[in-house]
Amino acid sequence: MAKQPALPTQAEDFSAWYNELVYKADLVDLGPVRGAFVIRPYGYALWENIQRELDAMFKATGHENLSFPMLIPMSYFQREAKHVEGFSPELAVVTHAGGQELEEPLAIRPTSETIVGELYAKWIQSYRDLPLLYNLWNNVVRWEMRTRPFLRTSEFLWQEGHTAHATEDEARAEVRTMLDVYARLAEEFAAVPVIRGEKTEGERFAGAVETLTIEAMMRDGKALQSGTSHYLGQNFAKAFDITFNDVDNQQAHAHTTSWGLSTRMVGAIIMAHGDDQGLILPPKLAPHQVVVVPMGRSNDEEGRTRVRAEVDRVVAALRAAGVRVKIDDRDVSPGAKFYEWEQKGVPLRVDLGPKDLDAGTALVKDRLKDEKDTVPLSGLVDHLVAAIPDFHDRLFERARAFREARTVEAHTWDELVAGVETGFVIATHCGDPESEKAIQEATKATVRCIPLEGVSAEGTVCVHTGRPSGYRNKVVFARAY
Amino acid sequence: MAKQPALPTQAEDFSAWYNELVYKADLVDLGPVRGAFVIRPYGYALWENIQRELDAMFKATGHENLSFPMLIPMSYFQREAKHVEGFSPELAVVTHAGGQELEEPLAIRPTSETIVGELYAKWIQSYRDLPLLYNLWNNVVRWEMRTRPFLRTSEFLWQEGHTAHATEDEARAEVRTMLDVYARLAEEFAAVPVIRGEKTEGERFAGAVETLTIEAMMRDGKALQSGTSHYLGQNFAKAFDITFNDVDNQQAHAHTTSWGLSTRMVGAIIMAHGDDQGLILPPKLAPHQVVVVPMGRSNDEEGRTRVRAEVDRVVAALRAAGVRVKIDDRDVSPGAKFYEWEQKGVPLRVDLGPKDLDAGTALVKDRLKDEKDTVPLSGLVDHLVAAIPDFHDRLFERARAFREARTVEAHTWDELVAGVETGFVIATHCGDPESEKAIQEATKATVRCIPLEGVSAEGTVCVHTGRPSGYRNKVVFARAY
Repeated sequence: MAKQPALPTQAEDFSAWYNELVYKADLVDLGPVRGAFVIRPYGYALWENIQRELDAMFKATGHENLSFPMLIPMSYFQREAKHVEGFSPELAVVTHAGGQELEEPLAIRPTSETIVGELYAKWIQSYRDLPLLYNLWNNVVRWEMRTRPFLRTSEFLWQEGHTAHATEDEARAEVRTMLDVYARLAEEFAAVPVIRGEKTEGERFAGAVETLTIEAMMRDGKALQSGTSHYLGQNFAKAFDITFNDVDNQQAHAHTTSWGLSTRMVGAIIMAHGDDQGLILPPKLAPHQVVVVPMGRSNDEEGRTRVRAEVDRVVAALRAAGVRVKIDDRDVSPGAKFYEWEQKGVPLRVDLGPKDLDAGTALVKDRLKDEKDTVPLSGLVDHLVAAIPDFHDRLFERARAFREARTVEAHTWDELVAGVETGFVIATHCGDPESEKAIQEATKATVRCIPLEGVSAEGTVCVHTGRPSGYRNKVVFARAY
Repeated sequence: MAKQPALPTQAEDFSAWYNELVYKADLVDLGPVRGAFVIRPYGYALWENIQRELDAMFKATGHENLSFPMLIPMSYFQREAKHVEGFSPELAVVTHAGGQELEEPLAIRPTSETIVGELYAKWIQSYRDLPLLYNLWNNVVRWEMRTRPFLRTSEFLWQEGHTAHATEDEARAEVRTMLDVYARLAEEFAAVPVIRGEKTEGERFAGAVETLTIEAMMRDGKALQSGTSHYLGQNFAKAFDITFNDVDNQQAHAHTTSWGLSTRMVGAIIMAHGDDQGLILPPKLAPHQVVVVPMGRSNDEEGRTRVRAEVDRVVAALRAAGVRVKIDDRDVSPGAKFYEWEQKGVPLRVDLGPKDLDAGTALVKDRLKDEKDTVPLSGLVDHLVAAIPDFHDRLFERARAFREARTVEAHTWDELVAGVETGFVIATHCGDPESEKAIQEATKATVRCIPLEGVSAEGTVCVHTGRPSGYRNKVVFARAY
């Protein structure tokens, strides 16, 4: 095996493990501007696969894509009071263009509610124009002080959905539908179990009436908010004059929503599944579901030719079955290849040399198992095709069991304090923002969400203030990214 | 038919025809910043289909996608002299971010050669790392003074390929391969015939050694450059220090290429095919290949139900055959629907009412024909499935015949002057940039390209200066967008 400096273990320094792995696994590289990263092909392919699955779900739920310009007049942000308060500190501002100073500075979009609102006001005249169900795939800039690849970057790739509806009920149903789409992406594709819930007032999107979230547990027990869906009420409709003639020919303001999922989901995949050897990628999103390593001594021309013929046969059959498979025929030692593909988290690897061929078998390395399996060549393709959904199920179950083991229900302050050291804590909270702040100062934990399907808080009191519960359900406390 | 203000005809004012059509057909809308347009779902779906086909061809030719940040330090542009000269007048510059003035201003990418060069220098160490075959799908900003939707906009969507090679031969082969990919996209998907050729020195990309182009004829006889592929020599490799150890362990500079195709291709589709009624979309890229209009009086509930059942059957069969089909069941008069889908250029429309059902037929309107065809319902699906590639062929042939009718070979100055009034002129040119400039001033026409497969210039003299030909082939003169 080639000598490679090992990763820090997750136990000794989870943060260092992450920060080294994203570079070593060729996911990202540093760009010239602080906090803006290059996403390399291996990382970008993950994002492309996320995009493909999400986009199909958006279209299946009746949405269409479109494109808005990224430069927004600064004055637009002033129109919605909470929105400007939330976003102005993070804006990147274009003051000069075409060799001249601009009359009005332009912000690079941090999110597009304002410019979308301006156009929706023009497009929406009658209830017949509603609902308007649109989505944008684009890049945004938020000037963050502390950045980390995928998790918090000054520029990131994402999608932002923006819809307008005639009624509050319809808009709230849309917000819920899109949260469910995100939960499906996380659970059924990324193999990351998530808690669907509502954000408390202090954690809401700037300008929203309600923010729903999916929260996932990383392997250090911290939470990662992985997608959010907002009911904006009539706030933006009033700020941008999005009105329509309703069925009774009365003027009314539309109810709008927005929802976004970003390259942060790649960070979720890395931290929810990875181990000390490196990444473990969910097969439905992995760039390569199977890597085949043909072996054989360099002086055994005949053996290598026979192996290559069998590899080509197997790979052609896998591709015909829709499997994403890569042949690694680089002039590099098998040990170095094994090390690299383990670190890059390829779900299944096939090692095949002349001796295996003589024995009529291949060795299959499953990234979730320590030992290789010996599989007859006659059944190899079927074995691999079946192993892909099975790998997904085992990976999901592994993450679910991990989360369960690290989740406690706290009835006392001490239990809360102890619980957030290692994972999620389910507890009753009074809903007072001042109490939330005090808890965060004392424990570094925040209310991640009030779960939609959770433990009833009926008859219980706040673990911090002893006051009655502020919500129907107990909340989830955790430290978070 | 609903009353709609008609489009200007192409003959009376082609430019006004275009400028009205892009809005009326719901392709674009005005954004708040001059020159940056909103691409609406009907226009964006065209771009998504272009992306899908191009991306498949990129991957089939061995390329991978990745993502670079859009903000580039201004100093990067200084490193390649011709590049900075070409692009600095068009840069949009971020001077403030996060509430503070930046130490170094950042440009929004007008193209990414500089930032790509910086990273390639890091990624490329040995000949084993070559070739590097990467592509970016993104948005760029070029502050243009005169803008038009799709054709010239201050922000646009595109892809930019960036590759690095060990040898000049390999790099030049790549440039040619990608030009061929663009030509295939234009001809086999957009049904737009193109001339593949080389740009003269004055029309080259800023920093390139060679620029290849595909040039298409619009229906006013003008040319539209629709995609370009550049051999950058070692210019950027030297500016950004992209060196590698070659097979003989000698340090060498890489040879790089770049190639781009943008939303301008949507403009090409509009202007190469449209007529006085509106768009005519190439079926392989059209958002809807078939639109079905169910008919029936509003008081004939039973008739409408029967029609809807048949429509659902036909649409399900079409979708199963991979056809993109839309049912237009809006509460709008059939006449208004017919007018709208003609203007939106849907290749095939099916009108079906209770009387048609009784007769066992449907009416099929082909956008390239004046009259509707009566088609037996039993054969309707097969008819439509077959009509799609046939429509593509007829549309391509129509554009090819138009171009042929508007292309002349000029042997004299007067023939050149007359020819560029209505179309393309094939003529010998001496290659002198001063002569090119004088021709442009006199005729508004430029050398669009020196065709790769063209008319030999052997033994002929320049139509302007009488000097010997500067190129192997006669060149194409035309007025251009």
